[in-house]
Amino acid sequence: MGKGRLEAFSDGVIAIIITIMVLEIKVPHGEDFAALQPLLPVFLSYVLSFIYVGIYWNNHHHLLHAAKNVSGGALWANLHLLFWLSLIPFVTGWMGENHWQPLPVALYGFVLLMAGLAYYMLVRVLLRIHSADSALAKALGKDVKGRLSLVFYALAIALAYVHVGLAIGLYACVAAMWLIPDRRIERHLQESQG
Amino acid sequence: MGKGRLEAFSDGVIAIIITIMVLEIKVPHGEDFAALQPLLPVFLSYVLSFIYVGIYWNNHHHLLHAAKNVSGGALWANLHLLFWLSLIPFVTGWMGENHWQPLPVALYGFVLLMAGLAYYMLVRVLLRIHSADSALAKALGKDVKGRLSLVFYALAIALAYVHVGLAIGLYACVAAMWLIPDRRIERHLQESQG
Amino acid sequence: MGKGRLEAFSDGVIAIIITIMVLEIKVPHGEDFAALQPLLPVFLSYVLSFIYVGIYWNNHHHLLHAAKNVSGGALWANLHLLFWLSLIPFVTGWMGENHWQPLPVALYGFVLLMAGLAYYMLVRVLLRIHSADSALAKALGKDVKGRLSLVFYALAIALAYVHVGLAIGLYACVAAMWLIPDRRIERHLQESQG
Amino acid sequence: MGKGRLEAFSDGVIAIIITIMVLEIKVPHGEDFAALQPLLPVFLSYVLSFIYVGIYWNNHHHLLHAAKNVSGGALWANLHLLFWLSLIPFVTGWMGENHWQPLPVALYGFVLLMAGLAYYMLVRVLLRIHSADSALAKALGKDVKGRLSLVFYALAIALAYVHVGLAIGLYACVAAMWLIPDRRIERHLQESQG
Repeated sequence: MGKGRLEAFSDGVIAIIITIMVLEIKVPHGEDFAALQPLLPVFLSYVLSFIYVGIYWNNHHHLLHAAKNVSGGALWANLHLLFWLSLIPFVTGWMGENHWQPLPVALYGFVLLMAGLAYYMLVRVLLRIHSADSALAKALGKDVKGRLSLVFYALAIALAYVHVGLAIGLYACVAAMWLIPDRRIERHLQESQG
Repeated sequence: MGKGRLEAFSDGVIAIIITIMVLEIKVPHGEDFAALQPLLPVFLSYVLSFIYVGIYWNNHHHLLHAAKNVSGGALWANLHLLFWLSLIPFVTGWMGENHWQPLPVALYGFVLLMAGLAYYMLVRVLLRIHSADSALAKALGKDVKGRLSLVFYALAIALAYVHVGLAIGLYACVAAMWLIPDRRIERHLQESQG
Repeated sequence: MGKGRLEAFSDGVIAIIITIMVLEIKVPHGEDFAALQPLLPVFLSYVLSFIYVGIYWNNHHHLLHAAKNVSGGALWANLHLLFWLSLIPFVTGWMGENHWQPLPVALYGFVLLMAGLAYYMLVRVLLRIHSADSALAKALGKDVKGRLSLVFYALAIALAYVHVGLAIGLYACVAAMWLIPDRRIERHLQESQG
Repeated sequence: MGKGRLEAFSDGVIAIIITIMVLEIKVPHGEDFAALQPLLPVFLSYVLSFIYVGIYWNNHHHLLHAAKNVSGGALWANLHLLFWLSLIPFVTGWMGENHWQPLPVALYGFVLLMAGLAYYMLVRVLLRIHSADSALAKALGKDVKGRLSLVFYALAIALAYVHVGLAIGLYACVAAMWLIPDRRIERHLQESQG
């Protein structure tokens, strides 16, 4: 089964998710800095979520690029991932609207955790239809970063009830960990072509 | 006539439908579990509709994949299908907002029924421009699942006035019936290539 | 200059326009038929606009399919068309919300007229970079339908102040005129390939 | 790394940005010209932003067309550009809603300035992976227009506090400067193919 339309559909959904989040930043009625001020947590939440969705698009791009083909199960694993990503605008809006209260911050982490698990499941489904010496299998390796992210999300959910700053700091750390370019797949692809 | 742009446009519309539905889950003002509670039926309705739209995308993907080409009539049959799918966010929102009252639940089933009929018509239009021994014709076979779904939707509409739980249970059953991977088209395509 | 990305971008914008219109059908708070009733003009306006945007997508698809390449001017002529199409959700919402009052109905016609003119300009720009015996030039011929539509839109704007029913009837007539499959481009393409 | 999916994703995001801006033009409750009048500044802001986003899509199209390939860094530089573009609906809505008050007008310029800088960074990242005699490098040349735009945006931000008309006039001038077809990349591409 070709992967073209899976990529196109995922691009569409992720493009919409990353863009409609901005609709949660409601246009204020005032016209001065005071009117903007209550929007600051909403804006910062938007920045964080934009980076996260961007990371997912980036990783998804690399993953599908390395995959040779997809199965019917991969279509559903992909939809499962898109489901959790589609909840990011809601949890982002709730977290921002409430100026980072414990429950919204924990729920944000929960959605990230579920999206991370869904991504992990998509990877497993794809690996099942690729041989152990495929570009995909080599590129992913042990996926330390992916597993570590899940641990950090779980930790952040618990920490949200201690101090929300700790939880948000952890979310930012995980994002930073992914922003550092992940050369694994690129390098292996280059080697296999070299 | 090429099918590329038909697929691309349908992907775009379905991607938007599946994503804007999340906008119906309005960000609550409160910050605790009590604020989330009234959102539960909205969320569950969203999950059901996400699965339905996902099923349509999946089936549409397989259908167009098996089709060799499209006609002008197929473009319109496709737009007709997209019209009914585009109403899913509205009926989902209404069903959730009213915590599953009979009329909204029945209207939800009506839109599913019309979308099912529109899909059936699209299949007929495509079969008309494919020979009886084409991959498409073989793959679709008698389309028992498609016909059964229509009966179930009609039944659910009537049952909504007896007990909404029965109607929603039927919607869930139909979704489950489709979630079980439909190997028909995939298998026939493989055989025809083998 | 390739036309692939122009098609992809237009597909994206038209897909969003046709889908976000449904957001104007606000989920009512009530749960019975009485709650749905005030939505009827909104819904009928949505149906009309869905058909119009569908017609534009269809014609755009055929036009670009027949075109061999595009110019910088064509990119802007295309954006100009998309601009007027992007206003359709607004005028649709206003027309429906006010239950078909003269000014909203006339403004709806004005946007259709401007979109029609923009389409006409796009056709001219494309014809300028195609020879007189190209598939595009032959396929478009005298474009009687396109010119007639503009006259009907202008007429409907005036009639909206006599009786809105006449204006809306004309809009429906123009839509019906386009729904009758336009075999011109298809036929000429087939002939030129035959 | 192929550039196809980067183009597709950017097309999707830009298509959504340009289209959801229209949602800021809220459907008024009245039905006469008086009801439309307060929407005029919102509408004019929408026109200006539509042109700006259109210019970005156009330039992005030409830029990626001239580029032979992209790097991991280019993916992130592109997301950075999309981030600032995604804020345009918000600042457009705020500027229009407040009938062009100094701060909203200055913030609009700030977002344009940041988007301009992000575009400039994307160009640098792409030039780094292309040789000095590549079509891309030749086509971009000294990029006088790009640098000039940044100066004008900065100037307009300051002028917004003197008179908003001056700032908006400058935004319109920059837009006009870009609307004049930029034959640079097209010409160089043609020469390199000739």
